[in-house]
Parts: sequence; C-alpha cells; structure tokens
Amino acid sequence: MKVLFVAGDPKPERWTAPIKALLPEAEVYVWNPEGPVIDADYAIVWQPPAELFERERKLKAIFNLGAGIDGLLAVPNLPAGLTIVRLEDAGMSVQMAEYVLHQLLEASREMEVYREQQRNGIWKIHRPIKRADWPVGVMGLGQIGKKVARTLADLDYRVYGWARSEHTLEHITTFAGRKSLREFLKQTRVLVNTLPLTDETRNIIDYDALADLQPGAVVINVGRGEHLVDDDLLKALDDGLVARASLDVFRNEPLPSDHPFWTRREITITPHISARTLRDATLEQITGKIRDHARGQPITGIVDTSRGY
Amino acid sequence: MKVLFVAGDPKPERWTAPIKALLPEAEVYVWNPEGPVIDADYAIVWQPPAELFERERKLKAIFNLGAGIDGLLAVPNLPAGLTIVRLEDAGMSVQMAEYVLHQLLEASREMEVYREQQRNGIWKIHRPIKRADWPVGVMGLGQIGKKVARTLADLDYRVYGWARSEHTLEHITTFAGRKSLREFLKQTRVLVNTLPLTDETRNIIDYDALADLQPGAVVINVGRGEHLVDDDLLKALDDGLVARASLDVFRNEPLPSDHPFWTRREITITPHISARTLRDATLEQITGKIRDHARGQPITGIVDTSRGY
Repeated sequence: MKVLFVAGDPKPERWTAPIKALLPEAEVYVWNPEGPVIDADYAIVWQPPAELFERERKLKAIFNLGAGIDGLLAVPNLPAGLTIVRLEDAGMSVQMAEYVLHQLLEASREMEVYREQQRNGIWKIHRPIKRADWPVGVMGLGQIGKKVARTLADLDYRVYGWARSEHTLEHITTFAGRKSLREFLKQTRVLVNTLPLTDETRNIIDYDALADLQPGAVVINVGRGEHLVDDDLLKALDDGLVARASLDVFRNEPLPSDHPFWTRREITITPHISARTLRDATLEQITGKIRDHARGQPITGIVDTSRGY
Repeated sequence: MKVLFVAGDPKPERWTAPIKALLPEAEVYVWNPEGPVIDADYAIVWQPPAELFERERKLKAIFNLGAGIDGLLAVPNLPAGLTIVRLEDAGMSVQMAEYVLHQLLEASREMEVYREQQRNGIWKIHRPIKRADWPVGVMGLGQIGKKVARTLADLDYRVYGWARSEHTLEHITTFAGRKSLREFLKQTRVLVNTLPLTDETRNIIDYDALADLQPGAVVINVGRGEHLVDDDLLKALDDGLVARASLDVFRNEPLPSDHPFWTRREITITPHISARTLRDATLEQITGKIRDHARGQPITGIVDTSRGY
C-alpha cells in the first residue's frame, strides 16, 4: 500500500515518521510535483494543489487533515466520486468547547472589567450573572457543535441547537432546517457557529439573523469566516443589536491588517486557534481508517459531497 | 413558625419578600438588635453578630447563606450543639467550574498573548496545547470540587482529586488524607483549591506544597485566602516553581491596596466573584429545608462542627 502525504509543512517528516510507525505495512511518500508519479492508494492532505489529482490517478480515498472540507471541495480537478474522508473530532471538539466557554465568560462575567480593575488596583464586585439571561444557541450539531452544546448545558446554561437535519440531545432544544432558523435565533442571546461551510450555510449570519437575536447579543464564530457577513456584523454592532463578537475565523486569513474588525473594541480576534489539529490523535485516526479501508471494512467520516460535509 | 433574617443587606426586603412568598406559613423578621427578642425558630444568616445568640435562645437551626461556614464557626457565643446548615450548591458549583476553566485557559492557551496581539494588529498562531501537559489537581471533593473535576475531565483533561476522605469519581484519580497529599501534588500542574477552611486545611498551600507541583505550575484558589500562605506563593513565583496564580479569595478582603499580589503580573486577582450566591436558588433551597425540618423530616447540609464543614 502506498500512502502520499500532501501538506505544506516544511518538515514533512514530523508527519511521515509517525505515519510509518502507525502503519508499517505502508510505503509513505511526500508530495513532490517534480518527482515521479507514485500511483498512491491513499493521500493524506491539507489544501492540496490541483496538480495532485492530475498526477495521482489511482487514489482509493483521500483523508483531510481537518474537519472542514470546504477548502478541499473547492480544489479544481477534484475527481467526481473520489472518496473523501474528513477528520472526526481527534481532540478538536473539547478545544472548541472550552474556547467557546472562555469567550462566553469574557462577555457574561465581564472578565475584561476585572482585569482592568486589577491594573488599577480596584476591588469592586459586579452583579452576578443569571444563567437565564444568557441562553446559548449552537448552530451546527456535528461532533463539535454537540460537544459545545453539551458542555454548556452541563454548566446549567439554557442551550438551543440548530442544524440542517433533526437531532435529539438531552436537555437541549433543537431546531432543524431553514424554516425554523428564525425561531431558533429568537431564543438565542449567545450565538455559537460551528456549521460546516456549504452553499446553504454561506453568509447565513447576516444582518437579519443578527437582528433576530435577543438583546445584548454575543456572536462566537468558530465555524468559517464565510458564514458571517462582515459588514452586517459591523452594522449590527453600530445599531446596538449585537454587544460583542468573538471571531476565530475570517474570510481571509490572516485577517488583513486594514480590516475594520481589528480596531473594534467589541470584537475579540483570535488567529484560527479555537481548535488545533493535534498530530498524534489525527494520525492515529487516519492511519486506522486507511488500514480498515484497505481491508474492506467500513469507515466513518466519509464526506457526502452532495451535502458538502 | 418564626424565621429571622440576619445579614447586613441595606435592603433586607429583597430577601424577606421572597422568603414570605416561598414559606407563607412563617412569620418573617429582620434582625434588629434594638427591637424585642423574637424567639425565632430559625435564622437565615450571613456573618451574624455574636449578639444574635445571646438574644435568640430558641433557635432550632440556623441556615448559612453560603457554602463555607468558617466565618460562622468563628462567631463567639455560637451555642454548642446548635444545628448549622450550610448552603449546598444552589448554582455555585457551575459558576466555580466555569471560572476555573476560564482561568485555566488564560494560562494554558495564552489568551492574554492573543489579546495583546490583537491590540497590536498581530496575527500569530502559537503552539497548540497538549492536554497531557496540563494535569489538574482539585483539592476538596465536595459538590463544588466534584463539579470542577467533572467539567475538566469531560473536556479530556487528566484530573486528580484530593480530599480528607475517600471519594470515587469516574475517570478521576482520587487521593485521601494528608499522607497522600504529596503524591497528589506531584501529579498536578494546575492546582485548584475548593477546600473548606478548617484547622486542618489552613495554610495547606505553602512553599513545600507548591514545590511539589509539576513544572510551570498554575494555582487557582477559589477556596479561602487562609488556605494559601501568601509569602510562600510569592517566593515560589520568584523561584520559578509556580508560573501563574489566579486568586479569587484572600486573607483580608478587600485585598489591601498595598498587598504585593496587586502588582505581580503572574497573579490574576478577582474580587471573590468566582461563585456568587444567587438569591432565588438560595432561598428556594433554604425555605424548603426549613419546611422539612419543621415537619421533622431529614435535611442535608447539616454541618459537622467537629469536622468544621
């Protein structure tokens, strides 16, 4: 079995060494557009070049080094019918859940006010939060969205979930489909986006959506930058419909230095760090699936390209 | 039944009105040292004056408006054998758990570095955390400690627990008693204190304890200021044994303006806000217990004064 590693890491041996260790039955190659064609059986990829699919024609499946495959689906020449497998969790959902909780507390418990007080030597207690005043709505109920929702529900927040299809989650009120989006938003003060990016979800957080949120709304975007209409968020902040936003993903990354988000006090910017791919857990998952696939066993995480995730 | 409310709130009707609503069978009084003796059956107290116990001699039980009863046990004239009931949870454990997680992320995920980057318009990704590098040790396994431990374990942190007596908690390695304290500390990098303050636990976090923690240690104190030896923490910071501390409780509150903690960059100070008493939940719990006690039914949360909590 031939496995090809295709990602722009200047030190690919950080990946290929553990792949070899985890999958000793494989020959492992690093993508080299100037080298010979490998005729690889499997490719492990992150943002692969279109050329990959011109040269490697015997791929049985490709494994994406991330949960979101919107970037991969946008690659020209991606062969129709090629089996694409996305990363499932691999330690990302817990990172997302804790990031979301951290950002929620920045808003709900005024942590920046306490930091400012400390800088000035001030001891002053602010009003305690009532959880009932901070209902959370989680968009997307895949593994990440579910973990975010579960974590917050376990901390006694009122949690709503919205997804394309029906989900049943204990102590979480769920809504399904576009027709119920408005009803979901109207229950929500803290909007957490964990959706996959598809044609259906692009620009879903627009001015109308923000206007439906409860007063003092907070937006936490850990999905993709293209879910959010940047100008609409700025207008919603100006109009007082949204109080704060914590943004980890952007339409262009790095966020351009002249983007107005940088200078808005109400916006917290982090550089796409809410959940990071953890090499060990990721490669254990992917090599396990390659082995199963090669043996003809079923694997999970295969992308439904018609659905887009 | 006569219920006496004894707490230094300038607007005691904020408490007595809901008490009357929840317990219509009671006559509700506000403490007035110059008024007549009430001969109250029950008192609901926060930091009561010693005089209370000289004047009110028919108390069947007193209900503390907080989980920690170290302050109450220090009141002179507290009659031996008086039934003291402490507040159980009432929404505090979830507040503590989220506060602890927030402070943990400040350390483990370098959130201040990202805030500083934003202020300077810098997009830079730092190394992702490995949860294995951040083992957490929770001191105290009452309702608060358990919730803190459970929340962190559910987010895939390795969690250790230490308490006076044996506890069994799923996915959490527990230690019991002084003899195993050192073993517990040696597993721990992030030390979270939720202990009750007793003669046994006063000054338990001293230089020797801090020196036993793993490198890059973080101390999160949400118990009582007297658990921590202030000078020992400062020395441990100076000696590089502890990297950061998040302190919500102090020996003297408000923390005196000349205290060296204020000016240490490695110390985060919050003004005893990690968990706040929530009036509605608190009074529902206490009035329910008063009703049960008056009917001769068993109630939980009775303090074992020999144990001190």
